Amino acid sequence: MRSACCSLRSSALVCVLFFTVCRVHAQGFVIDDAVAATARDLMDRAQSDNAAYEIVASLTTEVGPRLAGTESEARARQWAVQKLRAVGFANVREEAFQVPLWERGEERARILTPFPQPLTISALGGSAGTGSAGVRGEVVAFASIAALKKAPPGSLAGKIVFIDEVMARSRDGSGYAVAVGKRRLAAYEAARAGASAALIRSVGTSSHRFAHTGQMRRVTEAGEAGVPTAALSAPDADQLQRALSYDGPVEVEVVITPRQLPPVPSGNIVAEIVGRELPEEIVLLGAHLDSWDLGTGAVDDAAGVGIIVAAAKLLLDSLEQPPRRTVRIVLFGAEEVGLVGARAYAERHAASLGQHIVATESDFGAGDIWRFDTRFADAALPAGDAIGRVLAPLGIERGGNRASGGPDMKYLREAGVPVVGLLQDGSDYFDLHHTPDDTLDKIGENALDQNVAAYAAFVYLAAELDVDFR
Amino acid sequence: MRSACCSLRSSALVCVLFFTVCRVHAQGFVIDDAVAATARDLMDRAQSDNAAYEIVASLTTEVGPRLAGTESEARARQWAVQKLRAVGFANVREEAFQVPLWERGEERARILTPFPQPLTISALGGSAGTGSAGVRGEVVAFASIAALKKAPPGSLAGKIVFIDEVMARSRDGSGYAVAVGKRRLAAYEAARAGASAALIRSVGTSSHRFAHTGQMRRVTEAGEAGVPTAALSAPDADQLQRALSYDGPVEVEVVITPRQLPPVPSGNIVAEIVGRELPEEIVLLGAHLDSWDLGTGAVDDAAGVGIIVAAAKLLLDSLEQPPRRTVRIVLFGAEEVGLVGARAYAERHAASLGQHIVATESDFGAGDIWRFDTRFADAALPAGDAIGRVLAPLGIERGGNRASGGPDMKYLREAGVPVVGLLQDGSDYFDLHHTPDDTLDKIGENALDQNVAAYAAFVYLAAELDVDFR
Repeated sequence: MRSACCSLRSSALVCVLFFTVCRVHAQGFVIDDAVAATARDLMDRAQSDNAAYEIVASLTTEVGPRLAGTESEARARQWAVQKLRAVGFANVREEAFQVPLWERGEERARILTPFPQPLTISALGGSAGTGSAGVRGEVVAFASIAALKKAPPGSLAGKIVFIDEVMARSRDGSGYAVAVGKRRLAAYEAARAGASAALIRSVGTSSHRFAHTGQMRRVTEAGEAGVPTAALSAPDADQLQRALSYDGPVEVEVVITPRQLPPVPSGNIVAEIVGRELPEEIVLLGAHLDSWDLGTGAVDDAAGVGIIVAAAKLLLDSLEQPPRRTVRIVLFGAEEVGLVGARAYAERHAASLGQHIVATESDFGAGDIWRFDTRFADAALPAGDAIGRVLAPLGIERGGNRASGGPDMKYLREAGVPVVGLLQDGSDYFDLHHTPDDTLDKIGENALDQNVAAYAAFVYLAAELDVDFR
Repeated sequence: MRSACCSLRSSALVCVLFFTVCRVHAQGFVIDDAVAATARDLMDRAQSDNAAYEIVASLTTEVGPRLAGTESEARARQWAVQKLRAVGFANVREEAFQVPLWERGEERARILTPFPQPLTISALGGSAGTGSAGVRGEVVAFASIAALKKAPPGSLAGKIVFIDEVMARSRDGSGYAVAVGKRRLAAYEAARAGASAALIRSVGTSSHRFAHTGQMRRVTEAGEAGVPTAALSAPDADQLQRALSYDGPVEVEVVITPRQLPPVPSGNIVAEIVGRELPEEIVLLGAHLDSWDLGTGAVDDAAGVGIIVAAAKLLLDSLEQPPRRTVRIVLFGAEEVGLVGARAYAERHAASLGQHIVATESDFGAGDIWRFDTRFADAALPAGDAIGRVLAPLGIERGGNRASGGPDMKYLREAGVPVVGLLQDGSDYFDLHHTPDDTLDKIGENALDQNVAAYAAFVYLAAELDVDFR
């Protein structure tokens, strides 16, 4: 380990002066004073930098919604290329791939009996349609996807399934992993049991009348078909549950007319600050450019785009020379519909993944970062801890060594690329996520500065330090 | 004044004992100890009473949205008659009238250039339609309805007006009176200036992506026609304003297809506790049964229905004998579309308005009552103050003598019926008002108890005390 050698030399010197510093050094990795000072300077500059917000405002206003594969997503790529070139990044380019196009159609639902009234729904991404005549049926409620799985095959013939599982709010978003199961599987489990359609309580924490869309699990190679499936807003799920609490059957009508179309072009946008010594070694900063169609994708994930682009821009604008390694920004396409851009990136760059030193993605909204997780080799943990100490004044605690790195890091992580997670406070994230309400006004002008500070310091250190995270 | 005489006798006695009580009595009106004790007992009982919430839940679930003149409003009347009879009120009846029927159709809008994307709108009640082909035009923004009024006739030919005035949040809802001007007049002022359509920033305080509907001013007898007019949600108004901040024209498309149909039946529902001594003298408690079509009308105005019905029910359930005067509940129909039920009530009961002792309406959501306003003759103000002192332990301060009494009290007030206002904290009311988000979950189970306590005490005192508020 080059880093260990470096750290021992430095700690011997500094220990003469400061016990506290010595204790830090005893943990095995020392960040050179000048490097640490530069990192701190970047953090300071980020606090008075409005670049991230301006990027978020620009993307959400000039492009707005940008569903994978649509003309809007194509405009987002044009926007990104233009924006990244204007900032001054090198090697700005699109890396194209194909994505299946799913288009939302008409969508409406209503209680027919006993209490006729409309329900607010959104079709789930990838759902089959009901046809414009819709389907009608008696509602059968299940407390969870696990409960639906127990329904015998064919037992729900002619019925409409309603899964009414509530998602728990949490800072780390851990409720999502649980709740998303019903979104992924309801269509298929309802089909297996013979139902005509499925409704799920939205995977989200909002009490407002927005249905949260999101991708279903893709049809498997076995070709199993799901029933038409939509999310109900929380108030509508409450209402349906109340209607069910009266005696007698509750009948609903569901009309959704989405279309699944043949693959169309999408792409990832890549930009770089070329490393001054080790240009072939890559520190990857990701975010995703696509969004769901209902909102303007402000917290998901224009915020991430703004944060990482502003962080890299800060390096470009502040450093006298580029860091030793290459900083690569990747704005992934088609994340929402199944990490299609992430897979395309991993496949295209398979030969160079060994030179991806570390990677991370910002894709959890606009909340402050509160924890720094890594997924490093044990020998690199002292380096992770040292970076964590630089970030600590931002209110960021050192987390564990089980980072996911973010959704689009999946294939890199599985290929052995070290990843980190700069975990944001996501307490409110699932109030907005995948809803029409994911709009710019939900992000304060200075809300992103702490994120930019953390990403700028992290990416600089990762690109500058003589360290191997593997 | 019978009351002055009564108060002088009592105060002479009590002043011997307590200076503070004497001071109260010096203000000229004394509430008999037994009557005050009964009022306090009603207030206590209200705190452990869940009747109001149950009524709100029942109406919003079993009927849901109930736009004036629709089949849903008719179901609300059936619901009310059944509910009021079940509670045990006397003389439960429908008083029918006719109301013009306005039906919402399709509604959508989008920015065409320079940044194509959808906008969230709702047609204003009473608006003309664009036809299913919609209208397209360049947006011309105005800061207020006053600014639009200055546009010369014909100067906006082919344009689409956008009034971007922000409504102020306040406890007393005073921002509404200002903001509603653009909702009432935009269609007509835009027509006068030659525009093709009008968009207004929603009259509301929510930052969520809901457009707030609401009634425009009705076409005058002069027959002036307004242009098709819709409200934009606040995030969409922000977005349109941002698009306008770039160089170049912003073109939008608006499609709304409402229909104005011939008059259809509506009605007010009346129920009573018949007074034991003066049955012809009426203390009127109002709320309105109809709602806008977008939500389920929970805060507007199922809450008011729940509060006044529960308050009167508390008298029925708690008092050994009815109060001296008749307590009359009126659940008005067709309030939202222009106080049609209120006018019908005033016309039908014109001959007996002189026997309406006092009247009030609950129509401002589910917030706590913080002020007690009156509109009494000067001579009756001491009685108002005495009632105010009974209500004070509920956290209710004595307000002024300029009460409106509530929207449906307009014609009664104009006819000289004394009114009071039990003013609720409306800080959040206009977040929900006239939106799809006006649903039951926004009302806590115990949120209405303080309101019920105040209304029960007030209506009991008004019906029992020997006082003339005129």
